[in-house]
Amino acid sequence: MNYLGIDVGGTSVKAGLVDERGRLLYSRKVPTDVSQGRDGVIHNIVKVSEAVICQSRRPVAAAGIGVPGPVDMERGIVANCVNLKWNRVPIAALLREKLHVPVFAGNDGNLACLGELKAGALQGVDSGVMLTLGTGIGGGVVQNGTLWIGAHNIGGEMGHMVVGHNFYDCNCGRNGCLETFSSATAMKKYAARLMRQGRKCPVLWRMCAGRGHRINVKMLFEAYRQNDPVARDTILRAAHYLGIGIVNITAICDPQRVAVGGGVSQAGELYIHLIRKAAEDARYFKELPIPEVVLAELGNHAGIIGAAILAQTKVRKKERRARK
Amino acid sequence: MNYLGIDVGGTSVKAGLVDERGRLLYSRKVPTDVSQGRDGVIHNIVKVSEAVICQSRRPVAAAGIGVPGPVDMERGIVANCVNLKWNRVPIAALLREKLHVPVFAGNDGNLACLGELKAGALQGVDSGVMLTLGTGIGGGVVQNGTLWIGAHNIGGEMGHMVVGHNFYDCNCGRNGCLETFSSATAMKKYAARLMRQGRKCPVLWRMCAGRGHRINVKMLFEAYRQNDPVARDTILRAAHYLGIGIVNITAICDPQRVAVGGGVSQAGELYIHLIRKAAEDARYFKELPIPEVVLAELGNHAGIIGAAILAQTKVRKKERRARK
Repeated sequence: MNYLGIDVGGTSVKAGLVDERGRLLYSRKVPTDVSQGRDGVIHNIVKVSEAVICQSRRPVAAAGIGVPGPVDMERGIVANCVNLKWNRVPIAALLREKLHVPVFAGNDGNLACLGELKAGALQGVDSGVMLTLGTGIGGGVVQNGTLWIGAHNIGGEMGHMVVGHNFYDCNCGRNGCLETFSSATAMKKYAARLMRQGRKCPVLWRMCAGRGHRINVKMLFEAYRQNDPVARDTILRAAHYLGIGIVNITAICDPQRVAVGGGVSQAGELYIHLIRKAAEDARYFKELPIPEVVLAELGNHAGIIGAAILAQTKVRKKERRARK
Repeated sequence: MNYLGIDVGGTSVKAGLVDERGRLLYSRKVPTDVSQGRDGVIHNIVKVSEAVICQSRRPVAAAGIGVPGPVDMERGIVANCVNLKWNRVPIAALLREKLHVPVFAGNDGNLACLGELKAGALQGVDSGVMLTLGTGIGGGVVQNGTLWIGAHNIGGEMGHMVVGHNFYDCNCGRNGCLETFSSATAMKKYAARLMRQGRKCPVLWRMCAGRGHRINVKMLFEAYRQNDPVARDTILRAAHYLGIGIVNITAICDPQRVAVGGGVSQAGELYIHLIRKAAEDARYFKELPIPEVVLAELGNHAGIIGAAILAQTKVRKKERRARK
């Protein structure tokens, strides 16, 4: 049997076919287009899902969907999603109606974590944390070898951990959230700010033609490699706060391993090295053991694969119950 | 059988006899006197322990000791303790030699958490967190109904979670640790600072005879009840950062319940109410469910009881193994 995994982000909706062993067979993406409102976004989700299902030679047993916000996993209801401007959306029921397969929903970071746990960099760990660095920052927590979603389904929202004071407020209305320091959005904002302040950045300046709003994370890492001072400060600052975040997580639940995924992690081992170093520097005493910091293995597909694994897990649980 | 529980703090060493059901039968305390160095402190621990053992009519089966710092629980070695200036001290072996019973060691906050889990405010929870507000801030984490000490024995060090920027640095050398905002030490420092800055505080001024260094937490809460503005600002600030800390913990592992203990919690329900309110205000979206915030039930004895429960658990585990 194959499963459909759907990953809804602020920018794009990705859908893919995943086999029983968590391998991605095929995927597609379309823009999320939040400006179209809730029904427009759901239309886009259905469109890309149908396109993927059409490619499957075998029937799709079920679908899973990850959304950037807290989700009531039992009932498949998105409690709140700032980026999509959703509030209490019964996404599982709405999609089941259109796709004609059982649909299960979860938080996107939690599902990326599930993907890495079953088929990626967190395989075999007893305790671990996934950090997804994208438009925002999400993640998930592994305890006793299983995904821990928390007492109220809201665990793993590492982006809203307060880690300091920042020059701008978070979308959530507070100040100091990790995602305002280390998400892709935060890095772009900070680099553009340094540029506006007149900091010299010959490489980055050339890349974005002197227009701060054109800066993207790929440019920043490319400019960093060419020793651009603004790119350097921006990336080291983002890593610095991730280091504080990792030590905060350690101070609370002391995991064995932290896997770093999401768009920003495409910078690869270079960035992982900087984050590891920042976590070492942020320790509250110098011999403090910190978790292994590793690159997530499923790349941009962790969300799709994790969503499909959620669907598979739920279907199997139902089958086991039915057999009893 | 009875068990000996020992709780070593920066100010005093407490020891007590605890029965098999986690009830404290008898306790004593002596000053820690850190200035005497490692051996002096150990001498004080032995002295108070012997005094307590003498009171027991039944033999003491084993002893547990809680220390404010990370402890290698398998080997009973204190890895590091800033307040006691200890580094790699094999406390279990040292005390076994003097007390002639098996000794087991753990982090004091973790053991207070164990005490509350087995005999206090965390009984029956699946996931919970203990915060001990004293000279510093410690705590523990409960996952799946058991104490979670982490992959490297360093979980539950909530005092070193960075939650903002502060006017003074933490003992650990960093800035922004929760314990620099909300420990007893932090509250005294902040109130004294406001007083130095010339803020009016008629009630507090009278209580401490205008000497900032004489301020203590009991005074602060008494002055708060009498509407003293400095006491009010100090207490609300400490609660504010505890609220941020609780929401940070929620963003990571979303526990069901947070129990607040330690010396500062002697202020009782008044303070719990302020902390609960601060956590509600610190939510990253307004419907975010937060953990129940409750007063720890074992008061100043949580550490002793938890240490004794550690000893009991370890002895029973050994007995079970021996029987196999």
